[in-house]
Amino acid sequence: MLLIALTGLPMGGGKGGSDFDPKGKSDGEVLRFCQSFMTELSRYLGADTDVPAGDIGVGGREVGFLFGQWKRLTSLHTGVLTGKGLLWGGSNIRPEATGYGLVYIVDIALKHHKDTIKGKRVAISGKGNVAEFAAEKVLQLGGIVVSLSDSDGMICGGRKWIQLEQFTEVRKIEARRGRIKEYLKFSKTAKYYENDRPWKHVKCDIALPSATQNEINKSEAEALVKNGCKYVAEGANMPSDPEAIAVFKSGCKFFIPAKASNAGGVAVSGLEMSQNSQRTQWTREEVDNKLHGIMQNIFNNISSTADDLGKAGDYQLGANAAGFKKVADAMFEQGMVL
Amino acid sequence: MLLIALTGLPMGGGKGGSDFDPKGKSDGEVLRFCQSFMTELSRYLGADTDVPAGDIGVGGREVGFLFGQWKRLTSLHTGVLTGKGLLWGGSNIRPEATGYGLVYIVDIALKHHKDTIKGKRVAISGKGNVAEFAAEKVLQLGGIVVSLSDSDGMICGGRKWIQLEQFTEVRKIEARRGRIKEYLKFSKTAKYYENDRPWKHVKCDIALPSATQNEINKSEAEALVKNGCKYVAEGANMPSDPEAIAVFKSGCKFFIPAKASNAGGVAVSGLEMSQNSQRTQWTREEVDNKLHGIMQNIFNNISSTADDLGKAGDYQLGANAAGFKKVADAMFEQGMVL
Amino acid sequence: MLLIALTGLPMGGGKGGSDFDPKGKSDGEVLRFCQSFMTELSRYLGADTDVPAGDIGVGGREVGFLFGQWKRLTSLHTGVLTGKGLLWGGSNIRPEATGYGLVYIVDIALKHHKDTIKGKRVAISGKGNVAEFAAEKVLQLGGIVVSLSDSDGMICGGRKWIQLEQFTEVRKIEARRGRIKEYLKFSKTAKYYENDRPWKHVKCDIALPSATQNEINKSEAEALVKNGCKYVAEGANMPSDPEAIAVFKSGCKFFIPAKASNAGGVAVSGLEMSQNSQRTQWTREEVDNKLHGIMQNIFNNISSTADDLGKAGDYQLGANAAGFKKVADAMFEQGMVL
Amino acid sequence: MLLIALTGLPMGGGKGGSDFDPKGKSDGEVLRFCQSFMTELSRYLGADTDVPAGDIGVGGREVGFLFGQWKRLTSLHTGVLTGKGLLWGGSNIRPEATGYGLVYIVDIALKHHKDTIKGKRVAISGKGNVAEFAAEKVLQLGGIVVSLSDSDGMICGGRKWIQLEQFTEVRKIEARRGRIKEYLKFSKTAKYYENDRPWKHVKCDIALPSATQNEINKSEAEALVKNGCKYVAEGANMPSDPEAIAVFKSGCKFFIPAKASNAGGVAVSGLEMSQNSQRTQWTREEVDNKLHGIMQNIFNNISSTADDLGKAGDYQLGANAAGFKKVADAMFEQGMVL
Amino acid sequence: MLLIALTGLPMGGGKGGSDFDPKGKSDGEVLRFCQSFMTELSRYLGADTDVPAGDIGVGGREVGFLFGQWKRLTSLHTGVLTGKGLLWGGSNIRPEATGYGLVYIVDIALKHHKDTIKGKRVAISGKGNVAEFAAEKVLQLGGIVVSLSDSDGMICGGRKWIQLEQFTEVRKIEARRGRIKEYLKFSKTAKYYENDRPWKHVKCDIALPSATQNEINKSEAEALVKNGCKYVAEGANMPSDPEAIAVFKSGCKFFIPAKASNAGGVAVSGLEMSQNSQRTQWTREEVDNKLHGIMQNIFNNISSTADDLGKAGDYQLGANAAGFKKVADAMFEQGMVL
Amino acid sequence: MLLIALTGLPMGGGKGGSDFDPKGKSDGEVLRFCQSFMTELSRYLGADTDVPAGDIGVGGREVGFLFGQWKRLTSLHTGVLTGKGLLWGGSNIRPEATGYGLVYIVDIALKHHKDTIKGKRVAISGKGNVAEFAAEKVLQLGGIVVSLSDSDGMICGGRKWIQLEQFTEVRKIEARRGRIKEYLKFSKTAKYYENDRPWKHVKCDIALPSATQNEINKSEAEALVKNGCKYVAEGANMPSDPEAIAVFKSGCKFFIPAKASNAGGVAVSGLEMSQNSQRTQWTREEVDNKLHGIMQNIFNNISSTADDLGKAGDYQLGANAAGFKKVADAMFEQGMVL
Repeated sequence: MLLIALTGLPMGGGKGGSDFDPKGKSDGEVLRFCQSFMTELSRYLGADTDVPAGDIGVGGREVGFLFGQWKRLTSLHTGVLTGKGLLWGGSNIRPEATGYGLVYIVDIALKHHKDTIKGKRVAISGKGNVAEFAAEKVLQLGGIVVSLSDSDGMICGGRKWIQLEQFTEVRKIEARRGRIKEYLKFSKTAKYYENDRPWKHVKCDIALPSATQNEINKSEAEALVKNGCKYVAEGANMPSDPEAIAVFKSGCKFFIPAKASNAGGVAVSGLEMSQNSQRTQWTREEVDNKLHGIMQNIFNNISSTADDLGKAGDYQLGANAAGFKKVADAMFEQGMVL
Repeated sequence: MLLIALTGLPMGGGKGGSDFDPKGKSDGEVLRFCQSFMTELSRYLGADTDVPAGDIGVGGREVGFLFGQWKRLTSLHTGVLTGKGLLWGGSNIRPEATGYGLVYIVDIALKHHKDTIKGKRVAISGKGNVAEFAAEKVLQLGGIVVSLSDSDGMICGGRKWIQLEQFTEVRKIEARRGRIKEYLKFSKTAKYYENDRPWKHVKCDIALPSATQNEINKSEAEALVKNGCKYVAEGANMPSDPEAIAVFKSGCKFFIPAKASNAGGVAVSGLEMSQNSQRTQWTREEVDNKLHGIMQNIFNNISSTADDLGKAGDYQLGANAAGFKKVADAMFEQGMVL
Repeated sequence: MLLIALTGLPMGGGKGGSDFDPKGKSDGEVLRFCQSFMTELSRYLGADTDVPAGDIGVGGREVGFLFGQWKRLTSLHTGVLTGKGLLWGGSNIRPEATGYGLVYIVDIALKHHKDTIKGKRVAISGKGNVAEFAAEKVLQLGGIVVSLSDSDGMICGGRKWIQLEQFTEVRKIEARRGRIKEYLKFSKTAKYYENDRPWKHVKCDIALPSATQNEINKSEAEALVKNGCKYVAEGANMPSDPEAIAVFKSGCKFFIPAKASNAGGVAVSGLEMSQNSQRTQWTREEVDNKLHGIMQNIFNNISSTADDLGKAGDYQLGANAAGFKKVADAMFEQGMVL
Repeated sequence: MLLIALTGLPMGGGKGGSDFDPKGKSDGEVLRFCQSFMTELSRYLGADTDVPAGDIGVGGREVGFLFGQWKRLTSLHTGVLTGKGLLWGGSNIRPEATGYGLVYIVDIALKHHKDTIKGKRVAISGKGNVAEFAAEKVLQLGGIVVSLSDSDGMICGGRKWIQLEQFTEVRKIEARRGRIKEYLKFSKTAKYYENDRPWKHVKCDIALPSATQNEINKSEAEALVKNGCKYVAEGANMPSDPEAIAVFKSGCKFFIPAKASNAGGVAVSGLEMSQNSQRTQWTREEVDNKLHGIMQNIFNNISSTADDLGKAGDYQLGANAAGFKKVADAMFEQGMVL
Repeated sequence: MLLIALTGLPMGGGKGGSDFDPKGKSDGEVLRFCQSFMTELSRYLGADTDVPAGDIGVGGREVGFLFGQWKRLTSLHTGVLTGKGLLWGGSNIRPEATGYGLVYIVDIALKHHKDTIKGKRVAISGKGNVAEFAAEKVLQLGGIVVSLSDSDGMICGGRKWIQLEQFTEVRKIEARRGRIKEYLKFSKTAKYYENDRPWKHVKCDIALPSATQNEINKSEAEALVKNGCKYVAEGANMPSDPEAIAVFKSGCKFFIPAKASNAGGVAVSGLEMSQNSQRTQWTREEVDNKLHGIMQNIFNNISSTADDLGKAGDYQLGANAAGFKKVADAMFEQGMVL
Repeated sequence: MLLIALTGLPMGGGKGGSDFDPKGKSDGEVLRFCQSFMTELSRYLGADTDVPAGDIGVGGREVGFLFGQWKRLTSLHTGVLTGKGLLWGGSNIRPEATGYGLVYIVDIALKHHKDTIKGKRVAISGKGNVAEFAAEKVLQLGGIVVSLSDSDGMICGGRKWIQLEQFTEVRKIEARRGRIKEYLKFSKTAKYYENDRPWKHVKCDIALPSATQNEINKSEAEALVKNGCKYVAEGANMPSDPEAIAVFKSGCKFFIPAKASNAGGVAVSGLEMSQNSQRTQWTREEVDNKLHGIMQNIFNNISSTADDLGKAGDYQLGANAAGFKKVADAMFEQGMVL
């Protein structure tokens, strides 16, 4: 909710799900579940009412099946789901959005702090969409990716263990749902740590936890700070536990909480809705520029809100206050609370 | 209707209201009335059907309450009202639109007459949204504001009694619903006329009546002409009575009637609808540019229509004819009349 | 369907009609039919469901009558028909779209083949919207129009028998539903062939059959090739019969089938829907640029698809394969086929 | 409203109309008007929302045309109009309902007053549906009809000038829209008074004014009383002016106001709705019995209400009070008034 | 259509179907087809719009699956299908309706002809719902069933080969989809004719062809008449070919065509709708009485129509004329034809 | 659910509520809550979808306020709530229904057991709608009411302490929300037990626990049996705890569980819906007869189901099995489970 408020897009937010476990199910079984689920869900959806997006277990296949049933039930080809395929209403840069947005806001914040991503060592956890596209963007902007990980372990290396030209190998591993450990084949300098996370093993200037909730605890945060990490921005949903956040806020130059730094995905969902409403499809460049502009606005908003509250640089406070205030003001103005 | 036709935007027009008197009512009472009113009104509204905007007694507070109830009733977050708050679908430049648009069309018309607003003395009546933002825009373009007024009286002064840097004081008076007389505190040269209107007291090149209906009669018009007023454009709805218009049309270089010159507000309502449909919010600059372009088109339209009818420069005729023709043509083309 | 898929716009396609014969009917009778027809049809339409456009026997008058009834029935002023009048939601360049688009794709293909339209002799059949605006665009781009035709006969001439400045005479003939033969009055060098088609009589570099289905048979195609025709693009729907196509594909440098080359009309219908959704009206230049961009994309798509299939330059194959694949992929992705 | 409340049926009431004058219009013109009118009206109708019935100028033909258009627009074959044809949802006894109901309530009231209609002389004005079927029912119950009338004059006679077996002649005159004067051909004893009303010319025990509003003034009422009239019940809408009512209430044994005594027509409209809802058609006998039961309930209600208010026998007071109380109670109970 | 018009119930008629072949399909496959079919069909149904019933290949199982999906899609538990299960909105006597109705109308017609079914020999073809319940009713009324049949052959016997107490055996055979030949086990006097129909082999007073279309040709009709058959009523849809009908009309005392005599099934579908609308379920006796009343009305209607047309006893003419006139009158009255 | 299934009416069941506490709220506050609640709830209701009835805290006042808002929101005057006021769609006998139904089923069961209610001593707990109207019906049928109670205590007496003619005093106490203890004023022989329940203090033949859940435990059940109680039927929802039920089933002649014996209220809600659908209002006698018929059917159903399962007289088993089977069968038949 606060995350969505920060994007500045005309959207609200909510969460829902089902208890269907797609593991081991055939395409036909998943199709039948999706159609049955949408038959019920469709009563509550609408381009101006509620627009679900994919999430854990709901990827392109499921969004396609859900959208097909929506169309069949309603005879409406509208943007009532986001994360759609590019052939039938999806947006460019949707898969890349969270990862790119994360690095954009870090880059923007670094400029604000008179610094640059160029040449910085960046520790990343995860190897899904967020981590993969964050790493790609870091490399494009001249940074150094020092780690990646998955639920089995962590891989890291020196300055050159992974570069843009080798990045396609990571993509292929991800695409066939392989394990990050396989990348050892492509790099002689890479090292793999079974069942471990990057935080105590790598030296970095920037940490981008992008794997999962609560993946950094207090001692890992302390190790990061001790090893020179100066900037932290969350790519996953709440990857730092409260004690870790306290360590970052006192020991780093900035800490950007998930509700600001991983808003890129939701932002491009909003842009997908906008493209659907306009019956158009923007180019990669157009979407990318708008995504960058949104991350810039988010940073400006949380930064100036922190300033206004007399806590310059406290981006966690800034994000909470700015998001909450926007929601509360809109509620009051619309007469929901009096 | 004709006004809306002139904007060139895909909208029609109509008027309605209620007999609820908000004076002395608490926020809670206004809220309950707005919710009850919208419960009935909602049957007849729709983003592609009918989109009310505020007017006398229906400002931001009421639009908010009405919109909140619309959303509650329909589960639709659509642009079914204009003049919405900036946080929940409103447009930039909406409050400024009528005043800015008025000065834009004057500026455009002056260029057409090989003249400029720069250095001109401009008499303005009123101190509400229209007058306030017209005055601001006049000052920005290098003109001289020689008067303002409210229902208690008129204030005027020499070349420097009010300038952009002092304009914030007028804003504050308006914001706290004070009287224009209070501005005497901020200007030593200003003079205040109790219970009077500017027209017989000031010398001006341009008159922008922006207060209320029928605020200029024949003798006031004659006084304006005699004192050198060469250009008249209406900011209020029909401020000049028919005899005054006759005086202006024979004694001035141009007279622009309200249905062309105060179309800026409705125009930005249309732009607000467009932004809602596109799920986006344009910057102040974007809206301002579009507003300027619309006023330019209106002027071109009324000017060339007057030319086509052999009455070059008769913008009243041009506005009536162009607006009427557009509505009639569309009706015939759609088979409503045969 | 494949044609629409090639435009890249978010639309599908279908065909329908009625058995009402408008010949000899009064405006009032046509109006009553249109209103009655829309009363039934309206159940199946919607801006996001099905959006009819004009076709044979359904021009501006009928679209207007249908749209008026739609509005009356639904209280919705939405873009539920295309080809609307400019005053009530239509798009600029809609009448010109097929003709312009045809010449654009030829021009684009010529560039791809390192050639240019400049100075080329272009044989055009037909004198309706497609032929008329194709001829105009050919002349604008420096080509030479060597023929036009109607169902009574064919007119042709040398390099100068028809040029842009004389083109208004063709327009006037078309507007009053006259015959192309009348143009003889305006050109001393033009020759008229009663009951004949251009293909065996003219020497040309480029042929743009734009009159009607099956208007070129095998012997005519052979005559064209023998007389030096190197490039063929279809402006009408399937004007070349299968044997003629075979001749063109072996004897010419390129042949572009209707499903790619006359997509301009449908494309601008899509742009009209987009403008309606955005509540705006683009200028002629904006629409023209977008139309050109769409024709460019179509060419890129059919060309690269032909390349991918190892049949570089076979634009018929490219168009069929690209269109079919897009539809099939979208169906699979949405779960319609498993 | 009060009338409808008295029927005890689950209906409310309201009035509306149009300014179309059917005089001199062809069937085709009336059809087109009815279809166009229903196109707009249909938004506000519904079997559980608003159900119009015929009235002046809206008979069987118009109800048929309106119902046909309703079905075409909505695909609903529901009871959304009453007074429908017997073949497509209408009720038996609908034309007879007001006239029969009038005589039923008189008969019921007479029993309450220990009297009987048998042998009573009954003066009736009018010769439309109400008068015609009231007269028929009077004759069936053994009463004597002493007068009928139309806008040209009044016809009356002795005990035998008109009897059930001759009544078909009156029916034929009415059916071909002839004048009541023509009945002179069928009765040697009948007398005709040009441009006059029955009230001063006949001696009667019971008066049933069934022609039009305000057709009995004070002096006519006095003449009736003086000539022995003891019972008055209104068949038209408010045929007695206020002074006449005062005369009846002081000089007669009872006066039953229209809102109770002519409720039969509305009552059978309600029964028609009930039959439509049940997808059945009751026989004449079933409808007639229910109509009689409703008139009995109305009489019981107005009589006991008058008793409760200490004004036994004042059926005007009883009708007003009973109807008003029912509406007010229902409003309060539903929270409309607090 | 004419059949439905004759029932006098407030219904219209139409036919539709699908090309899904249920043979060899599992319950799950049939379920999925039914749900998918209803997903599309549901747009066009409604208790007051269109109400499908079962027919060939659509029995209780399919109606249940279709109804379940209708409820799921619309959240409406309304009578939008007939032939529903008794537990969820179906009507008593629905399976028996066509067979019972057939014998009722024969019984009624016999009374009209001063004759009785008691002791009459009745030849029946078929052994499905129609034949089975016709036979049962014949036996109940004291008639003698002389034959039954299926697509493999015909079984017949003397006066006592089949009686009410043995009828349960026929039911069991039908229920397990066995062949009528199996009944030989239960009757020593029965004879079986392979691949033959009853008409040339039995002596009967009454013939009730109840198997399938065109099951009686001219020579069979002649044999029936020659063997003493005096009364024919069709239980199947158009079982007699036109030549056979001519034979019956000249050689028998009466011939009742299917559109009158097998209307019982549709009639009880109408009663099922009525029960649904009233939220009630009538007992077997109530439905049976109403069915009998409807058959009586049908007979009265076709008989009196034949009389009116001067062709007393020509029930085919009476049925056609009465049905057609009702539909045509309703169309004219509703303005559909002018 | 099972209870509703047993009524045989075409209804399903569910439960819901809100957390608004009406205690101490003014009528205006309750009105505003009800209107706001219905604004949200109305999306899920419908005469054929979901029809709420009152329950604890939702009496006539609340149903009225909810229904008024429903009408305002939907323009539909349909039976979308039950327990409505008699003036606007409610049913006669709705308040009495549970109490009457309870005694009816006891009476029916007694007849089945060759016994009669006449002269029997009946212990009743509670003094709300259920207890009050159960007591009234017991007295009407010649039984003896030996106790009543409320949450403060229990009142009982000999054969004559309370009789029909004194029953109005109990009604008045209930109407002003007084305590049952007050009845001591009207009976010299009555005795009052503070904070106690009837079960251990009275001698009775029949026990009708009608106060609240779990109001009879094992020892109380044993006391009842020991004191001669032979018949138990539950009027409240599950008043006997499982151990008490075991005692009754072994020690009494019959035990009828709430899901069968207190179904009268829901049954009349169904009859109210039926009356609304038919646009009629049945007399007290009609509703009462139907209620009695439904209770008879319930008893037949649970009794014969128990017989079929080889447990004749086990009405708890019969009720559970019959209800469950009906729901399960309908689900299977409609394809919900396969």
